Parts: sequence; structure tokens; C-alpha cells
Amino acid sequence: MSSLLIKNAKWVITPDKILKDTDIMIKDNQIIGFESDDADKTIDARNKIVMPGLINAHTHLPTVWTRGLIENKPTLEWVRSFNDFDTDSNLASLSAITGIQEALLGGTTTIVDCSYFSKEVAHIAHYMGVRIVLGQLMIDDGQSERTKDSIKKAKELVKYLASLKNNRISYAFAPHSVYRCSNELLISVVQLAKKHKVKLHIHLNESKSEIEMVKKQKNTTPLKHLDDLGVSKNILAAHCVHLTKQETDIVKKQGISIVHCPVSNLKLGSGIAPIENYLIAGIPILLGTDGPSSNNSLDMFETMKITALLLKLKNPAFPAIEILKMATSYAAKSLGIDAGKIEAGKLADLILLDTRSPHLQPLTRQEQLVNHLVFSAKSSDVKTVIIDGQVVLNH
Amino acid sequence: MSSLLIKNAKWVITPDKILKDTDIMIKDNQIIGFESDDADKTIDARNKIVMPGLINAHTHLPTVWTRGLIENKPTLEWVRSFNDFDTDSNLASLSAITGIQEALLGGTTTIVDCSYFSKEVAHIAHYMGVRIVLGQLMIDDGQSERTKDSIKKAKELVKYLASLKNNRISYAFAPHSVYRCSNELLISVVQLAKKHKVKLHIHLNESKSEIEMVKKQKNTTPLKHLDDLGVSKNILAAHCVHLTKQETDIVKKQGISIVHCPVSNLKLGSGIAPIENYLIAGIPILLGTDGPSSNNSLDMFETMKITALLLKLKNPAFPAIEILKMATSYAAKSLGIDAGKIEAGKLADLILLDTRSPHLQPLTRQEQLVNHLVFSAKSSDVKTVIIDGQVVLNH
Repeated sequence: MSSLLIKNAKWVITPDKILKDTDIMIKDNQIIGFESDDADKTIDARNKIVMPGLINAHTHLPTVWTRGLIENKPTLEWVRSFNDFDTDSNLASLSAITGIQEALLGGTTTIVDCSYFSKEVAHIAHYMGVRIVLGQLMIDDGQSERTKDSIKKAKELVKYLASLKNNRISYAFAPHSVYRCSNELLISVVQLAKKHKVKLHIHLNESKSEIEMVKKQKNTTPLKHLDDLGVSKNILAAHCVHLTKQETDIVKKQGISIVHCPVSNLKLGSGIAPIENYLIAGIPILLGTDGPSSNNSLDMFETMKITALLLKLKNPAFPAIEILKMATSYAAKSLGIDAGKIEAGKLADLILLDTRSPHLQPLTRQEQLVNHLVFSAKSSDVKTVIIDGQVVLNH
Repeated sequence: MSSLLIKNAKWVITPDKILKDTDIMIKDNQIIGFESDDADKTIDARNKIVMPGLINAHTHLPTVWTRGLIENKPTLEWVRSFNDFDTDSNLASLSAITGIQEALLGGTTTIVDCSYFSKEVAHIAHYMGVRIVLGQLMIDDGQSERTKDSIKKAKELVKYLASLKNNRISYAFAPHSVYRCSNELLISVVQLAKKHKVKLHIHLNESKSEIEMVKKQKNTTPLKHLDDLGVSKNILAAHCVHLTKQETDIVKKQGISIVHCPVSNLKLGSGIAPIENYLIAGIPILLGTDGPSSNNSLDMFETMKITALLLKLKNPAFPAIEILKMATSYAAKSLGIDAGKIEAGKLADLILLDTRSPHLQPLTRQEQLVNHLVFSAKSSDVKTVIIDGQVVLNH
């Protein structure tokens, strides 16, 4: 059993509470509590804020290499451009290494990723120590050969991930979207997801042109279509920029979680998801950067700030703490990961931020702390990243 | 005469052109050209991007100390909260030191500031080496004693700044707004501005509630009111979130420059300025962070990205290079400062960014460079800041 003591943390945000001048004791991969004890390793946190690691709930790591290359296109045109960019497994692996480095440096401890190269990403995540939920992207465009192939590859990946015996790596089936997946594929995937007791991670209602296309293809809207097929339970739905009132009710009723990706939605001209309405309806909201080619970063501090700004545009009184929870405790709960909080018994996924840069000054009153984390902190403030009790980064 | 050679810059963005593997020669405070020569000092720029320093065209440095303390309020309520925060000259000075440090670390070389403590800010800017356009904030709320006092203090500041004999420090008269300044004050200030050949820096049409107030007070809208008074020429207008068609025409006709402050406008719920329309009308747009208590940072890379995202929401094809120019060459032109470009004869206000962080990978093709600077670069990438030919920061 290995033990780790975080000593004299200036501030700890759990995020349900704020503690001052506190120790945190970790044994193996778990937080034990706030009583200090002898430890194999001690980290001095005197000038540091300690908070749960950030959870990036929607991205595509193997596309890192296209950063800054697919620009100035609206959503669907941008999606189609990927056909011109033939990622091979080497590029996917290099991209994943770079993307995971970027994510860790910015305080992200859990990534939800979907791509055609999940095996490569898993391999790299396994060695780099990040917690990851992987899904092999499934697209059949109505061709039955591709339906079978998609399912075969997804099944292979589930088997491969199990062989890694790594509790940081888990699975979610990832059919791309309603407009790129046949009903047969969607129905089969849901049965698989039920069997393996995992979520479906899917792009839903991202752009108006996508919705128009589904209306033409299937005479309904994307999320409504899933519900009509009977496959709308246990879904992690990326985007949901445009939902009808009826679809919002379905999301609530079926317990769907929405991953809000505001930077990508703005950049591709998809729109601004009305998450203030979703929150009122009691829908769980997670935050994602989306892939670096539609963002063009994996910076969750930036995504938190932009989420907060767009909510404040509608309601300036919207509290910053809710944003912090979307990126930590709420996200962990939706994903079924026992992390996202600094509490005894939780998985030890924590980050330490230096408080001494000019852009975090002053920080003398407790009421400033959460505002600073959401509106002023930068990924460069992150100095230490602990995942599953292991110090993955310390600089 | 002192000379400085920037050697082997990996990329130089002028921003009209992109150069590769280039030297830049500086003598005294001027860029001489791209031919290298013997120099007193040489900076190795092998892994660096060199670009003009960023221009933050609207902020309030003495309010840094209120960062994270005045939250969750809409625009006018937030403005009024400042009455509860009695800044004294010590706090103003400490705030200015911290704010200028933050700005320099983030690659800002010119700041346009207005506050009640411009003398203190000038004093600190003088020693810290930043280029600054200062304005003593004028508010009379219709009280004639305060009108006189405002004018007296502004005149004193003009005299004080002249006594510093520092070419980096210049002046702009800063009446706060139409709703807080009497017609007498506005008319007097314009005469002073004409006499001293400087601009007026004023908050205009920021929020709907401000506009409603002016409608009640003066039976017109703020910018229209200035035009009716005959004082709408040579203005640097912060915000302009809500302009009527008629006001947009006035802005164009009178040559007014607009400082777009998107982060502050979102955070206070003021709205999103339709700068896509202003650009079509040919109105010069500069970028500002606004004060750190409504942002809550002085990060111009962040402001460039958010400006770009909001423009892309309307038009995904909007080119990133235009954003970069708003923060550099266009801003310098509007302010009458002979900087903002890396060209022979221009003032040497330059920044160097390290290209090696994961979040800037890959950067192999020229077409990625500008996209990376607007969408992926961070203030932490800035390693060297040169202002007026002097190395102000190098780390």
C-alpha cells in the first residue's frame, strides 16, 4: 500500500465546501481524509489551491494533428472535411500523446474520448496515467457492411480494454450520430451497451443543418428519433445546441446527460446551447472541449470560463460554483466514476494550482476563491496532477 | 544609441505578412529592418514566434484589487457597487503594479486606462516600461462643483504626464459616460481634447438599462446625444453593445473607433456587440479586457479568442487574421501610436512566444500560425516582451 500526503494546502475546494490550511491523506488510489499521517511521499501545498481534477467529457484526441488546419467552415462542412484528412494509427498515437500532455498540463484528469483509434488512445492513456472513457466511433451511413464492421470493432475494443486490467480505463459505445448511423446500428449498440452496463456517447442536435438533414432522412428530429426507436436511455449526449421543448422533456425523462461544448459550438457556428433551460429542467450538464480542430485547445479552464460567461449573459447572478461542479463532481456522477470530490472514500484525482501569479491577485477572501477558479485561473497555474493516487505531473 | 538583434525567429507575423527564419534589428526604440548587424544585445528566437505586442484598449488598472469581489450583478448595479469599494491611492498603486505585471506577462505592450488614479498609474507605468494611454475619469452626475473639479484634475494630470517626459505615456480625456456627465462637462472636455489634440475615451451604449436611463434623462440615446451636442468626433468608444442604425451611421461618419470588450459584456449581461455589422460599415474595432473586476482577467489572448468565437457564431468563415490585427496594427492606428506592426520605422513593441508547448502542436504549416495565435496560444506562451526597444520581460 502506497501513501501520499498533501501538506498545508492553502485552500481546498471539495467542491461542496472550502477548507483552509488543510492536509489531505491519500492511500493507494483513494482519499482517506483530512487527518495527516506518515506517508511514503509528501507534497508541500503551502501556496496551492487543491481541487478535484477537471473532467473533459467530450473530445477526439486522435485529431490533435489537424489543429489549425480545418478552419472557417460551418459544422457539417467541417465534419465532411475530415474525409480529406487520412489519419493513420501513427498520427493518431502522436496526436493522443500530445493531447493527453496538453490535458494533463491543464489540470484535466478524466477524458471522455471517441474516435476510430481508441485502441491506440487506450494504449497511450494506459502509460500516461490519465483516466479515460473510450468509445470506438461507429458510422455506417446506412451501409450494412459498415454496420457489421462497426459492431465488430467496438466489440474488439471492449475486449482489448478489459485485457489492460486498468481501472482508469473504461468504455462507452460511441455511435457517431443519428444522421450517420442506421436504425439497425443504433438498436444493436444499445443492446451491447445494456449487456456491458455502459453508456452511449453520441453527438446529438449539434447544428440546425444536421437537424434539417435528419428531418429529411427520418421525418423527425435526432433526439426524438432515438426516443422513438426506444434507445434514448443512458446516453451521454454531446452538444444538444438545438432541442425542441418535446426533446428537452425526453432528455429529462430518460435521464440523459448533456455535454456542453461551447467553444466548438461557437467556432463552427452551431449556436449557443440554452443550458440555462436545461439546468432549470434539472438535466445534468457536463463540459467538454470537443476535438482540438474545432476549439482549438483542450483547455478546460477556458471552457469553464466561456460556459460561465454565456450563462451570465442570460443571468448575471448565475453562481460560479455551479460551473466548477459541472467540470468535476457533477461530471463524475454522470459518468459513474467515484471521483470529482475531495472526500474520504473518493478516488484520488486531484490538481494543485499555484496561487501566486499576478492574475490570481488578490486572493485574501474565501468568496474570491471560486470566482478566481472559474474566471481568472489558467491552465498554466496547474503545478501538480494526481490521478488514481499517482503523481502524474509535478512541475 | 543602443541596438538589439532578435536572431533566427522561427516565425515572424508582421501581421500583414508571415516571415520564416528571420532576424529583426532594433535601434533605440525603432525597428530598423530584417537585416542583421552587430548589436549590443542579441535574443535567440529559434523556437519563437515574434509578433507585435498586444494592445488592450480599455481597462481600469486601479480596480485590480476588487477582482472576484463584485460578482453576480448586472451592468448598472455592478457600476454602483464601486461606491462601496473605497479605493485609496495605495490600493490603486498596488493594483496598477499587479495589473501591469499581469498584462506584460500576457504579451500586452500598450494599455488604454481610465480611472481616478491616473497619476499613480502613470508613475508605475513610467517605471515598469509599459506603453500607456491614460485618462483621468470624469464624473459629475450633474453637480457643477464636480464638473469644475473633474476638469481641474484632468488638466493637472495632463501637466503631470508632460513633466514625466516619457514618450510611452500619452493622454486621452476620459469622461465616464453620457449618463454620468453633464452636457457642460462633455462640451468643456471636447474643447480641451481639441486643444491638446488627443482623443476622448468614454463608455458608450454598454447596456440596455444605461440606454433607458439616458432616454429618460435626455430623451435620446447616448451616442446620438453626443452627436447632437456636437462632440462626437475623435472618440474612442468603449463597448457600443447596443447602437441604433442611426448611431452606427454616426460612428462611421464621425470616425469613431469602438473598443469591443466581449468578456465584460457577457459577464455583466450587457449583451454581445454586433461587431460583424460594425466591420461591414468599415468602423475600426479595437479590443479591450475592461477592468479585472468585470472580466476577471487582463488576458488579451483570451479576449482575442472570445472575439473570434463570437464572430464565428455569426460567420464561421470569419478569418482569424482580422482578430490579430484588431489587437495590434488596427488598434495602434486608431490610437495614433506608430507601433502595432513589425516593419522598418515602427516603434519596437514586440513579443516572443515559445512554440514548443503541447497546446501549440503541431505547427508545421504556415496556414496554422495565425489560427494558433488566435485560438490556441496562451499568455503563458509569452516569454519575452520588448517595449520601445527595451526588453521589459524575458523569462
